[in-house]
Amino acid sequence: MGNLSSFHLIKSGTDSKARAGELITPHAVVPTPVFIPVGSQATVKTLTPEELKDLGISIVLANTYHLYLRPGISVIEKVGGLHRFMAWNGAILTDSGGYQLFSLAPLSRVSDEGVTFRSHIDGSQHFITPELATGFQEALGGDIIMVLDECPASDASFEKVRAAMERTHEWAARCQKAHQPSNQALYAIVQGGVFAELRRQSAKYLTSLDFAGYAIGGLSLGEPREVTQAMIEETVALLPKDKPRYLMGVGSPEGIIEAVSRGIDIFDSALPTRVARNGALFTRLGRVNISNSSYSRMEKPVAPECQCYTCQTFSAAYLHHLFRCDELLAYRLATIHNLSFISGLMHEARAAILNNTFSSFKDNFLKNYKPTNEETRLEQKQKWLKARNSGG
Amino acid sequence: MGNLSSFHLIKSGTDSKARAGELITPHAVVPTPVFIPVGSQATVKTLTPEELKDLGISIVLANTYHLYLRPGISVIEKVGGLHRFMAWNGAILTDSGGYQLFSLAPLSRVSDEGVTFRSHIDGSQHFITPELATGFQEALGGDIIMVLDECPASDASFEKVRAAMERTHEWAARCQKAHQPSNQALYAIVQGGVFAELRRQSAKYLTSLDFAGYAIGGLSLGEPREVTQAMIEETVALLPKDKPRYLMGVGSPEGIIEAVSRGIDIFDSALPTRVARNGALFTRLGRVNISNSSYSRMEKPVAPECQCYTCQTFSAAYLHHLFRCDELLAYRLATIHNLSFISGLMHEARAAILNNTFSSFKDNFLKNYKPTNEETRLEQKQKWLKARNSGG
Repeated sequence: MGNLSSFHLIKSGTDSKARAGELITPHAVVPTPVFIPVGSQATVKTLTPEELKDLGISIVLANTYHLYLRPGISVIEKVGGLHRFMAWNGAILTDSGGYQLFSLAPLSRVSDEGVTFRSHIDGSQHFITPELATGFQEALGGDIIMVLDECPASDASFEKVRAAMERTHEWAARCQKAHQPSNQALYAIVQGGVFAELRRQSAKYLTSLDFAGYAIGGLSLGEPREVTQAMIEETVALLPKDKPRYLMGVGSPEGIIEAVSRGIDIFDSALPTRVARNGALFTRLGRVNISNSSYSRMEKPVAPECQCYTCQTFSAAYLHHLFRCDELLAYRLATIHNLSFISGLMHEARAAILNNTFSSFKDNFLKNYKPTNEETRLEQKQKWLKARNSGG
Repeated sequence: MGNLSSFHLIKSGTDSKARAGELITPHAVVPTPVFIPVGSQATVKTLTPEELKDLGISIVLANTYHLYLRPGISVIEKVGGLHRFMAWNGAILTDSGGYQLFSLAPLSRVSDEGVTFRSHIDGSQHFITPELATGFQEALGGDIIMVLDECPASDASFEKVRAAMERTHEWAARCQKAHQPSNQALYAIVQGGVFAELRRQSAKYLTSLDFAGYAIGGLSLGEPREVTQAMIEETVALLPKDKPRYLMGVGSPEGIIEAVSRGIDIFDSALPTRVARNGALFTRLGRVNISNSSYSRMEKPVAPECQCYTCQTFSAAYLHHLFRCDELLAYRLATIHNLSFISGLMHEARAAILNNTFSSFKDNFLKNYKPTNEETRLEQKQKWLKARNSGG
């Protein structure tokens, strides 16, 4: 089918399920495991395309739901597609917007045919189908596009989750049928919530349809960490080895490393960039908040060993000052730092896999990295989801 | 006195009072006429030092009032001075904070000794004198520092303005006396409001004290354009030719060109960067607002002839989209454009002066450039001043 988008598995770990490979896309060869920064509205918040490149980033994510509402798919088409619109010549993955339809848009009504929803911006009513979602993404021109899925809440009942999964399966088949032969790779999304039985069923069915890649959706939505990990294991066990595996919505350093060790190749999450704008910076010892007064007079950078522009150029005291003053440069410098941290982490993880030392790399990283307290983490997540759902 | 900061007058216009020269400062040779971008809190909002350099900018302004309150002068001293703190190796002019004491800080009480004021941030009480203002600026380490002045409101009575002027004169002498011999150049500030008689008196007195440069303060505070220009003319006529002349707080393209033709060498204003963040972009035909729907599908950049990064990289449609979505990158791209416009304008003005063609350059520029409607301008200015004074 002349599909330029494919996956090349270079090495499977001998001491873990971790894998090193590369995604071959029309715009870039992307080494995996890879973290994809989120640029929902055709911009990774605060950064230019050049800064992303300088951070070693070769693929970004944009969101069909957001771009459909603003500026509208036809505007981006007119300007020459999403790459040209955002002046990004690396690879792009577009999410179908399934998750946003059920989390962001108020009063969504779903039927087998599609989803009727109201814009979270102006309340206008819209209707989307798997065929439309596919067509929109084809028009945007991303290198990797996603099926439209139905993503139930994390506390939904077994019956509700099963129904959503079954609909997701039907929609995946319809997206596949609608997808025009091209260089764009279409990935399916495994659903099934926190139910191992459903996850297995979903993985089995979707792999039977032979997609270019497989995502795991509907996780990291407030369930305990152990449940996330168990669901990843159940799913990955049934996914084909020669296709990329994409865990949607996981972006904490510890969560990424745990999932890499379970065989995940691709990640995306707004977390590293969102927490950056709140002053939370990744270090080898865990997250620190630069607004804390302990940084107010610190001449050294936040992370003295860090090679990023921010740490190489500015003292912790300066960054602290910018955050205290709500200066716009603060958000950008913190974003650069966090993306550099994650980018470097992926690079090291890959080198360790190729070197057969991933297990010790992982143990060493997790031993030093103090994750955000689990209780606090879940509390924050719930708060954030709630704020988001109420339009906050 | 080993004063490295000096002014070198290269050419006086034959067809106008416009002058070309250079400021020799410890950190940079600055071609004049020059516009100084405002970075009150030790950051030109949204930009890195490298971006400023790329825009051809060799000097920035920081504000003693703001930095005294946050992060505190001692913090910047500890980190190695203001240049190191903000990682800027070009020249810096620090304003004394006189203007802010009377416009931003609530309940300021002035006496001959100094100013008692409350922080506009936390209400804490402080006391500043000319000697302290000088010492703070010496500690910050700017290349050019300013005397502490008393700046009355634009609608103040003759008597009030005269009293403020007289106090400004006494304070200027005290600042001069307090100033330690160094490479830092101390500039005086001519006051006198909209009263030609007082302006003349102020210029005469201050030039008798022999400062390294002369600023004109207390203008562009809501008075009509013609009054501003008349006051500039009255003052400049009495200032020495071999010293730089600095018009504080003027930053509109038309205002700058008018003042250059009247013999001003240095400008500073937050206007170009502030209006940028509201989506108002300078073009050769006047200001346009990128949020207007006419830009929503425009493939071309906002100013097709513009060589700035923003216009060379992105369509007007993309910039419009970023503003509509309140994306942080919007403010940065617009700031780059406006500073590039002003920087280019100063460059062209200087070339025209050196080429004896400034008058025709000015006429040509003003013929094409549609200034913001005078009534709207004054209204906006009053609104802005009011919002600012009420802490908005």
